[in-house]
Amino acid sequence: MLGNFTYSNPTKLYFGKDSLNGLNEELPKYGKNVLLVYGSGSIKKNGIYDEVIKILKANNKEIFEDAGVMPNPTVEKLYEGWLRAKKGNVDFILAVGGGSVCDYAKAVSVSVYCEDDPWEKFFLRMEDVDNKIIPVGCVLTMAGTGSEMNGGTVITNHDSKLKIGHVFGENVFPKFSIMNPVYTFTLPKYQMTAGFFDIMSHILEQYFSGTDDNTSDYIMEGLLKSLIHSSEIAVKKPDDYEARSNIMWISTWALNTLIAKGKSTDWMVHMIGQSVGAYTDATHGMTLSAISIPYYKYIMPYGIEKFKRFAVNVWNINAEGKSDVQIANEGLACMEKWMKEIGLVMSIKELGVTEDMLDGIAKSSFILEGGYKVLNHEEIISILKESMKA
Amino acid sequence: MLGNFTYSNPTKLYFGKDSLNGLNEELPKYGKNVLLVYGSGSIKKNGIYDEVIKILKANNKEIFEDAGVMPNPTVEKLYEGWLRAKKGNVDFILAVGGGSVCDYAKAVSVSVYCEDDPWEKFFLRMEDVDNKIIPVGCVLTMAGTGSEMNGGTVITNHDSKLKIGHVFGENVFPKFSIMNPVYTFTLPKYQMTAGFFDIMSHILEQYFSGTDDNTSDYIMEGLLKSLIHSSEIAVKKPDDYEARSNIMWISTWALNTLIAKGKSTDWMVHMIGQSVGAYTDATHGMTLSAISIPYYKYIMPYGIEKFKRFAVNVWNINAEGKSDVQIANEGLACMEKWMKEIGLVMSIKELGVTEDMLDGIAKSSFILEGGYKVLNHEEIISILKESMKA
Repeated sequence: MLGNFTYSNPTKLYFGKDSLNGLNEELPKYGKNVLLVYGSGSIKKNGIYDEVIKILKANNKEIFEDAGVMPNPTVEKLYEGWLRAKKGNVDFILAVGGGSVCDYAKAVSVSVYCEDDPWEKFFLRMEDVDNKIIPVGCVLTMAGTGSEMNGGTVITNHDSKLKIGHVFGENVFPKFSIMNPVYTFTLPKYQMTAGFFDIMSHILEQYFSGTDDNTSDYIMEGLLKSLIHSSEIAVKKPDDYEARSNIMWISTWALNTLIAKGKSTDWMVHMIGQSVGAYTDATHGMTLSAISIPYYKYIMPYGIEKFKRFAVNVWNINAEGKSDVQIANEGLACMEKWMKEIGLVMSIKELGVTEDMLDGIAKSSFILEGGYKVLNHEEIISILKESMKA
Repeated sequence: MLGNFTYSNPTKLYFGKDSLNGLNEELPKYGKNVLLVYGSGSIKKNGIYDEVIKILKANNKEIFEDAGVMPNPTVEKLYEGWLRAKKGNVDFILAVGGGSVCDYAKAVSVSVYCEDDPWEKFFLRMEDVDNKIIPVGCVLTMAGTGSEMNGGTVITNHDSKLKIGHVFGENVFPKFSIMNPVYTFTLPKYQMTAGFFDIMSHILEQYFSGTDDNTSDYIMEGLLKSLIHSSEIAVKKPDDYEARSNIMWISTWALNTLIAKGKSTDWMVHMIGQSVGAYTDATHGMTLSAISIPYYKYIMPYGIEKFKRFAVNVWNINAEGKSDVQIANEGLACMEKWMKEIGLVMSIKELGVTEDMLDGIAKSSFILEGGYKVLNHEEIISILKESMKA
């Protein structure tokens, strides 16, 4: 754990089959006017909407609805929520949905009292929030983004082909999150496995950085092993409570700042994946899966020791009598096999990327410097080309 | 992650070589009168005392000193601190020291405004705190107890031969903790390794419970592997910053409620160890180490699957062609070897226990029911006898 850092996470988690009751403990702490944010309406089909409305009413809340949050929330939607929250003089935002809904709720929460254009201030210029923030609570219906216990929010601007994430501080973290694994049972398989890989990628992009001996890496190996094991069960039996609950818990701890402590962190797969998302509107987790194998194969020689460790500690590769590269390759081969088995997308072609987009996608990918290799434009192009061929 | 639970941890951690600067961010949040709690005065020798005083004065605090907190804080000392805090009309308690000092500070913080006898209310009757609590902050100088990020406090009553821990809720958790691994460098080897085993025991007593597939177990395996690795380095080179920083971080996460999630948890080694402590005043971590091998050998058949997993995942035992018991025994043999190598006490005899004490120690050991085997009086006696022979 080299370097100086602080750790603080104020989000309270209510976990388990009865966790929705936590709303009754939390709602009385906030004002009367509640903006209820949700997505395409699946919560109306599975009954969660009715249960939440009942609890809100029992707590004498005035409900302002903001439905239709899309999988990659757009800047236009943000402006819409901003207006709605302002009009309702909203005291509290309750997000009911997956990571996109939570992300969006946080973006609205910092935007309502922002006197500038929130897209320009928080995303283009990446400025900190210096205005009043409306508190947010989440009822999570999908595991993947970790948005339920962090300050992250990602907004997409289709006109300028930009999908940008801003990681806000603790004041923007949800005050609480309700995590009932049963809510994730009804998710279509494509969204479910995309979420699994989003979690995987969050862990890997923190793991594959640094060369020191760091407890965070040991924690991550534990999380990865549990994720791999439980996801294999969940794809066969989506209503396996034990597996889905483990995955929901891993998802939160993969991106709530803990495992980043003492790490430089990479995040290039997210940068390239987000750029693919801005061009195709593809499901976030699948943009990451389609990039990962070409990316990790490319950077492996620059972080060979860690890739060896990954192979042995996460994939139980027997290292005896093998060269470093052989061991590292066997680890990546196991990962690729697992990815295919659980049904992940392995090529950006399948997500709608065409050859003419590659240059633009590479240009829109922010270059970060925390990983084992700082990429240039040509290297991103070659990784994208590898994915096209997969 | 079966069952319902909540997770919330409000303690802010400042970690690293420059972490003492965190005091300047935190102290302005609290009132003028500060009770400065510390132990035998080693912080005066290593300069930490002077640094803390300088920062307190720069923040215009009125300082009330409460020195001489002993390794196992006594009920008499608690009454003393209670009076001192009351007299000083104290707004904030700053604990500078190891786990005992942090424990004691929390005990004082809940006692000052308690209208009942705090020993009887909080320890004998185990009641919750329902009075005003004085906020606590910690500057940690020793890794082991995890007291810096939890609500735990242990007080010893020598007259009645009772050493009782009370785990309070989030309102009693330290508001912040300063964790500078360098502060742990000057600790005598005996205290250092006792702390290492206290951490080990915290993890093991949560790990050896439950039979479900639970992400918490995977996280614990990671923490254990990092602890074993770093402690082997630290005993050879106590000023190895990397190793000491990892150990300090593991210590916090071993007992800040995270890894208990979804677990029933055991804690019988702590119950017996605390009883040994009440009879001998021995160093806490050494009472645990002297009990552990006899205890785990005894309960192993009742939790054989988990002991096998422990052997394979933590100690890298090759399971091929071996019986369950053989694998489990090889894991415990590795643990015993590691314990001896880092210099832990393996027998309660060495801690001053005599044959005539055994019955009393067993009687004072609270029986808990979360582990693989609920012990009776005779079984505790036989475990104690095994330790006497070691």
